[in-house]
Amino acid sequence: MDTVGSIGESATLARIFPRLPHADAALLGPGDDSAVVAAPDGRFVVTTDMMIHGPDFRLAWSSPHDLGFKAAASNLADVAAMGARPTALVVALAVPADSPVSLLEGIADGFRDACAELAPGCGVVGGDLSVSETLTIAVTAFGDLEGRAPVLRSGARPGDVVAVSGALGQAAAGLRILFEHGVRDAAALRQAHPEVAAQLAPRPPIADGVLAALAGATAMLDLSDGLALDARRVAAASGIAIDFDAASIGSREALDGGEDHSLLATFPPGTELPGGFRRIGVATTGEGVLVDGVPYESRGGWDPYEGWDGNAG
Amino acid sequence: MDTVGSIGESATLARIFPRLPHADAALLGPGDDSAVVAAPDGRFVVTTDMMIHGPDFRLAWSSPHDLGFKAAASNLADVAAMGARPTALVVALAVPADSPVSLLEGIADGFRDACAELAPGCGVVGGDLSVSETLTIAVTAFGDLEGRAPVLRSGARPGDVVAVSGALGQAAAGLRILFEHGVRDAAALRQAHPEVAAQLAPRPPIADGVLAALAGATAMLDLSDGLALDARRVAAASGIAIDFDAASIGSREALDGGEDHSLLATFPPGTELPGGFRRIGVATTGEGVLVDGVPYESRGGWDPYEGWDGNAG
Repeated sequence: MDTVGSIGESATLARIFPRLPHADAALLGPGDDSAVVAAPDGRFVVTTDMMIHGPDFRLAWSSPHDLGFKAAASNLADVAAMGARPTALVVALAVPADSPVSLLEGIADGFRDACAELAPGCGVVGGDLSVSETLTIAVTAFGDLEGRAPVLRSGARPGDVVAVSGALGQAAAGLRILFEHGVRDAAALRQAHPEVAAQLAPRPPIADGVLAALAGATAMLDLSDGLALDARRVAAASGIAIDFDAASIGSREALDGGEDHSLLATFPPGTELPGGFRRIGVATTGEGVLVDGVPYESRGGWDPYEGWDGNAG
Repeated sequence: MDTVGSIGESATLARIFPRLPHADAALLGPGDDSAVVAAPDGRFVVTTDMMIHGPDFRLAWSSPHDLGFKAAASNLADVAAMGARPTALVVALAVPADSPVSLLEGIADGFRDACAELAPGCGVVGGDLSVSETLTIAVTAFGDLEGRAPVLRSGARPGDVVAVSGALGQAAAGLRILFEHGVRDAAALRQAHPEVAAQLAPRPPIADGVLAALAGATAMLDLSDGLALDARRVAAASGIAIDFDAASIGSREALDGGEDHSLLATFPPGTELPGGFRRIGVATTGEGVLVDGVPYESRGGWDPYEGWDGNAG
């Protein structure tokens, strides 16, 4: 079996490069000291996020393809949440020297498929390959605002409609199912429970970020830490309260569960909600998050410094 | 002692943010899903690179300030090597949960001082903080070409002057001194040997990248893997040979040692060399690297998959 250590960095890169998705915005792709990317409106949106073996994923559950797909999807969602169209990614990978080259090929294929499905035209313009005892995937993603103002967390006003596009609590439910059933049957669990796929390879509604901006969204973010916790961030930044309709939300897991990377946005009253957005509440005067008018205090979300049990699988 | 695990992610970030350097190009800084950076010429230059505890540094030798300084400097050099002016960085950090917060504060201060010294006006516009068993620093750096074409590796022509700005072999000499003397007296070694500081906190001539482009450089790269190995890359990309003057180079360590992050560039014959550039050879027809006309075959450079002894310190 070819490993990264046995064939070396150059030969490994030669096997990965052809699998990576091309970016339409790439004026100069991988191979020089830096890439050059088009930024036609004179600005670019940028976000960075790492996935770490252990706190962020287990190899008993996630395939290499899942890892690439999720790393791309979660970063694309941060670009979309600004109302921007994702244009390009750079990817820094650190893997143990005894990793099979097929691990990296699978990760590259996950990036390719996530870009093709979620953000056509977006691709990988550069990267870095290192050795580490801890498998680490660091992604930086770029987007084009196409002349629009970025949609911040701070623009929601009392009376705005609160809406979400994408799943609520599905990724957390998938994680719960994985923990309940142990590590032996992840593939079978995935067939039986779509929530497991939502955890391992989430499919956030990336294109709805631009649609929200075009429809006049006043605030937006991506739900990485759970609806309640992330809504509290919008409420704090905007100086308002967010009151959810319990009937529109469903379960407690939908309020507290993280990692869906769905888009939470606020729109002026009367806005025809674009794309997959559905109404789940209203912005009011006050502070914090409420459900049917009752303050909701549960923290929810995921802090790896507090929540990780130290296992990696 | 406050650790990242004991005070949590939010409180840690609150202590790091004020120490990070401001970027003049930041239209929107840290705190939302993404940052927004100015790209006035409608393009941006981007490069990414990771530093990993073990293969890339030892905590017995490098201070937290060194780590931030070197991570910034090495990425700034990749931007400079395109002939671009560095504008902004994003930084993803993964640290063990029991790391003291002062580790992160020191790293942040290193980023601040590297930007102030090497690329004034450049700053940190965003980041990510994660937990990992392996201390990992992933940097993505951006630059502005200010309307110029990027300086690639492929533009050197026979007859061009080959020149370098910055140290040759100093970082490798520093590493050799550290290995020879062991880990007990890094601070004293650093006082006695400037090469040790060149290894732990290199100071590449970032501003000379733009000066080289303005002077008409035909090819350029930053010397991360050693003069001979990196010159071979320019030669291969340009379809030429590079013949070094032995007297201008000095030691074998100057040819083979990596991590100086100096700038190697080629200029049309007769060019008045800008900034700190000095002539060290000439481009000729043929292929590969020669010294005083004799082919030079030593590989040199640093491949962590082959070269790392597994120790971290």
